[in-house]
Amino acid sequence: DLPLTLIAGPCQLESADHAQMIAGTMKEACAAAGAQYVFKASYDKANRTSLSGKRGLGMDEGLKVLQGVRDAIGVPVLTDIHSPEQCAPVAEVADIIQIPAFLCRQTDLLIAAGETGAVVNVKKGQFLAPWDMPNVVSKIESTGNDKILLTERGTSFGYNTLVADMRALPQMAKTGYPVVMDATHSVQQPGGMGGSSGGQREFAPVMARAAVALGVAAVFIETHENPDAAPSDGPNMVPLSQMHALIDTLMQFDALAKANPIEI
Amino acid sequence: DLPLTLIAGPCQLESADHAQMIAGTMKEACAAAGAQYVFKASYDKANRTSLSGKRGLGMDEGLKVLQGVRDAIGVPVLTDIHSPEQCAPVAEVADIIQIPAFLCRQTDLLIAAGETGAVVNVKKGQFLAPWDMPNVVSKIESTGNDKILLTERGTSFGYNTLVADMRALPQMAKTGYPVVMDATHSVQQPGGMGGSSGGQREFAPVMARAAVALGVAAVFIETHENPDAAPSDGPNMVPLSQMHALIDTLMQFDALAKANPIEI
Amino acid sequence: DLPLTLIAGPCQLESADHAQMIAGTMKEACAAAGAQYVFKASYDKANRTSLSGKRGLGMDEGLKVLQGVRDAIGVPVLTDIHSPEQCAPVAEVADIIQIPAFLCRQTDLLIAAGETGAVVNVKKGQFLAPWDMPNVVSKIESTGNDKILLTERGTSFGYNTLVADMRALPQMAKTGYPVVMDATHSVQQPGGMGGSSGGQREFAPVMARAAVALGVAAVFIETHENPDAAPSDGPNMVPLSQMHALIDTLMQFDALAKANPIEI
Amino acid sequence: DLPLTLIAGPCQLESADHAQMIAGTMKEACAAAGAQYVFKASYDKANRTSLSGKRGLGMDEGLKVLQGVRDAIGVPVLTDIHSPEQCAPVAEVADIIQIPAFLCRQTDLLIAAGETGAVVNVKKGQFLAPWDMPNVVSKIESTGNDKILLTERGTSFGYNTLVADMRALPQMAKTGYPVVMDATHSVQQPGGMGGSSGGQREFAPVMARAAVALGVAAVFIETHENPDAAPSDGPNMVPLSQMHALIDTLMQFDALAKANPIEI
Repeated sequence: DLPLTLIAGPCQLESADHAQMIAGTMKEACAAAGAQYVFKASYDKANRTSLSGKRGLGMDEGLKVLQGVRDAIGVPVLTDIHSPEQCAPVAEVADIIQIPAFLCRQTDLLIAAGETGAVVNVKKGQFLAPWDMPNVVSKIESTGNDKILLTERGTSFGYNTLVADMRALPQMAKTGYPVVMDATHSVQQPGGMGGSSGGQREFAPVMARAAVALGVAAVFIETHENPDAAPSDGPNMVPLSQMHALIDTLMQFDALAKANPIEI
Repeated sequence: DLPLTLIAGPCQLESADHAQMIAGTMKEACAAAGAQYVFKASYDKANRTSLSGKRGLGMDEGLKVLQGVRDAIGVPVLTDIHSPEQCAPVAEVADIIQIPAFLCRQTDLLIAAGETGAVVNVKKGQFLAPWDMPNVVSKIESTGNDKILLTERGTSFGYNTLVADMRALPQMAKTGYPVVMDATHSVQQPGGMGGSSGGQREFAPVMARAAVALGVAAVFIETHENPDAAPSDGPNMVPLSQMHALIDTLMQFDALAKANPIEI
Repeated sequence: DLPLTLIAGPCQLESADHAQMIAGTMKEACAAAGAQYVFKASYDKANRTSLSGKRGLGMDEGLKVLQGVRDAIGVPVLTDIHSPEQCAPVAEVADIIQIPAFLCRQTDLLIAAGETGAVVNVKKGQFLAPWDMPNVVSKIESTGNDKILLTERGTSFGYNTLVADMRALPQMAKTGYPVVMDATHSVQQPGGMGGSSGGQREFAPVMARAAVALGVAAVFIETHENPDAAPSDGPNMVPLSQMHALIDTLMQFDALAKANPIEI
Repeated sequence: DLPLTLIAGPCQLESADHAQMIAGTMKEACAAAGAQYVFKASYDKANRTSLSGKRGLGMDEGLKVLQGVRDAIGVPVLTDIHSPEQCAPVAEVADIIQIPAFLCRQTDLLIAAGETGAVVNVKKGQFLAPWDMPNVVSKIESTGNDKILLTERGTSFGYNTLVADMRALPQMAKTGYPVVMDATHSVQQPGGMGGSSGGQREFAPVMARAAVALGVAAVFIETHENPDAAPSDGPNMVPLSQMHALIDTLMQFDALAKANPIEI
C-alpha cells in the first residue's frame, strides 16, 4: 500500500505564523523521510474539560489561518467540525474534515459532513466498539461520499483513563477504509488534572509505533515547539524537536509493515 | 427532602394520543403513590446506532405533542435538545431540557441551555467520572442558571456494556444539585444488537431501587405499553403495566432513604 | 426470607483480646437490631500488595484466637483459606471457610473446601462475570457440599479501581445460593497507594445499603476501633463506633427488601 | 539487545510424542529465523473455567514428558506451578517456572519459586496495573533470585473480555527485567463460551507483532497442529502450520525494534 501519512500539528490554532512554522517544519521532516503529510489544527475546542480552557481562534479567523497554511506551505489541512452548519464553509478550506469522538454518532453531523464531498475523518468514540463503526460509516456513505477515514483514539477504561486496543486497527480496516492511529489522544487522561485533561506524552511514540507495525494508513500526532505552554493537550503532545527522529523510525516500520500486511 | 420524582415516558414521541395515554397512566400511578411526576419523551433521536433507526416526529410536531401533554394531562414535561439553536424554542414548551450524555461536554450547548432559564438536566457521559461533573455544572452556572439536575446513566465498561457505579450518586450530590438515576439507559447494551442497542429490561427496577435507597431526587425510566414494539430502546424499557407496582415499592424505599440521608 | 446477616470483624487477627472485643461489640449491636452475626478475620494475608505488608498471626495461633471467639463470645466465625491443605484444619474451627477472590477458580482449593462439609463462601474474582459463577459453584457441588455462599467484592474497572455492579447480586442469586455483599473490598483501590491498597471508606455504607435494598442475604464489612492503625485494609474499613447506627439502618432496609423481593 | 525469544508450545501436555513433535517443529522454525526458542506446556490446568475441562497429565507424568523434550529435542522448557510445594520438584526439570496470572500476588508461591533459583516468569494478573509489578518483583527478589521475566497477558476490560495495553510493555521494562508478550492469552475471552473460554485466534499475531515492534524480549504463543481439537485454549491458539511464517515476520520487526529501542 501507500507509505504512511502523518497527520500532525498543534492541538489548536494559535496564529498564522505559528501554524506555518509547525506546518513547514513537519513538511520538511516528512519529505525527508518519505512520508506524506497533512497539517492538523482546531479553530475551536468545543468540548474543553472546563469553561476556563482556551477555545481557540474561532471559525472565521481559523479558516484564514488554515488557508494560509495551504497557500504558503503547500500541504493539505485537516480540522474538526462541531455542528452541521460548520461543515460546508469548513470544507471550502479544509481537505479533510474531522468528526470529534464524542460526536461520532450524531447523525445530522455525519450526513452534513458527507454532503460536502470532502474527505471525512471520523474518530471512534471512547464509548464505542470497533465493530460498531460500520454503522457510523453507513451514515456518511448514505450521502454518496466514500472518502472516509476511521481513527482510533482510545476507549474508556475505568475513570479518567483510556486504553488503545490494537485489535481495533485491523478490525476497523475490515470496512475497507483507511485507518488512522491517534497516538496523542489515546494517551490522554480525560479530566485527569481536575479542570483539564492530563496525558502521558512519553507513550505517544509507543502507540504510534505499535500501530504502524500493524500497517495503519496514517498516524495522528499533536506537536508543539513547547508542549508545556500549549493552550490544550500539552501533556500528551510530542515536542516538535523530536518529530524528525520519530518519523524516520516510523517510516522504517511502515515499510516493513506494508511489505507484510496483516490479515484477519 | 422532597419525595421522589418519577421522570417517565416513552423513549420517543409517537403521537399525541400515545403520549397522553402514557402521561395519564403515569400521572395516576404517581399520584396514588405520593410521587411527583414529569413526562419524558424525545422528538428526535439524533444519535441512533444506525441510519435505519427511527428518529421520531421532529421538533415542530414533537413540541406540539409535548404542549398537548402539558395542557391535557397537566404534568411538566422533559425533552432532550441536540444543538444550541434548539434550546430556546424547546424551552418555551418543556419545563426541563435535557443534555444527552454524548454531548455533556459541548460548551456551546450547555451555555445555550443554561441561558433559556429552564431547568437543565445533564446526563453524565459514559466516558466521564462523577467527579468531573463540577466542570460541566460550571459551564451552565456561568449563565446565571442554577436550576440543574445531574443524571447517572451508566459508564462504559468494556465494549457494548455499561455499568452503573452507585458511588456516582452521592459523589454527584456533593455538587448540591439534585441527582437523578436513569434506570433505563444504565442497563442499555450500546450497539449490542449490531444495528441497534440491546438492553436488560429486567435490571431496570434493580437499578432504580438501589438508587432510591441511596436517596436520589428522581428516577428516570422509559416505559411503553408494548416495549418490544417501541421504535427505540425497547429492550431496556419497563412495561407500562408494571409501573404502578414499581412506583409503590420505590416510594417505600424513598421514605426510608429520605429519613436516613447518606452523608459522604 | 431470613433477616440480614452481618459478617464483620477486623481484616486480620491481631490478638485474642482484640478479636473478642470486636466480636463482642458487634454481637451486641447485631442483637439489638435483630441481625444475625458472624465474626470474620484472617489469620494470614497471603496476597498482600507488597512484601512489607503484615501477614498476620499465622494459622496455628489464628485458629486458637478464632476458637476463643467462638467459646467466649458464642458467635460463628468465618476465615479464609489459601491452599487445599489448610481446608480441613481450618474447618475444624471455622463455621464458614472463605475462598479469596484471586483463588476463586483454583479447582483443587474449591474441592478441598467443599470436602470439609463446612459452609464455603466464595468471593467472585475481580476478573469474573457474575454469570460465570455457576462454573465455580459446580466445582464445590461436585463434593456433595451445597452449603455455599457467593460474595460480590467488586470487579476490575481500569487500573487500581473496582466497581460493584449491582446487577451481579440478583444474577448470582439465580444460582439459588445466598448472596453476600462485601461492602469493604468493593470500595478498595487495589495497589492504589503504591506499596499498599487504598480505599474509599466513606462509600462502604453506600454499597451496603444499595445491596441490602436488593435483598441480599448478608453484608460483609471490615471494621476496627481505629481503622487508620489497622494492619491491613484500613482505608476501606468502617470505624467500629459507627457500626451500631449502620446496622440499625440496614435492618430497616432489609425488612422492606425482604417484604418486596426482586425477581429477574 | 538479544534477538527475540519465542516461548511456544501446546497449552497443556498431551503426550511425549506430541510434545516432542511440537518442540521439534518449533525449534526448527526458530533456528531458521534466528530466534531463540523455549518449549512451553502445562502439566496441570489448575483453574479451568469449569470442572469438565481437561486438566492434563499431572505433575509426575508431565515432568517426565518435559524432561523428554529437553533430552530429545535439546531445548529449554517452561511450565507453570500452582503451589509452593510444586516449585522445587518442577524446577529440577524446568528451566523456567511460571507464576499464573491469578496467583501473581500469592506471596508464598512467589517466594518458593524464587528460592528454587530457576528463572521465574510472572504473568501480570488481569486485575493488576503494570506499575504494581515492582511489588511482585520484590517478593521474588527477597529470595536473592533476580532471574525474573514479566509477562503481559491482558487486563480485565468489562466482562469476559481482556485488553492488552501496549503501554504495559515499556512500563514493566522499567523494572530492568525482560518483558514477555503473551499473544495467546491476551486475546482470550475468559468464560466467553459458558463452560469454557473463547478466544480470538486471528488477533494473536497482531498482538505479537505490535509487542515485538516495541522491543520485547520474548513472545509467548500457544500453538497446536489442530487448535480446534486442543484440550484447552484452542480458540486463541495459532495453528502450528502458520508459526514458521509468523516467526519470520516477527524477526524482521525484532531486528528493527532492537536497533531503535523505545525509551520512556
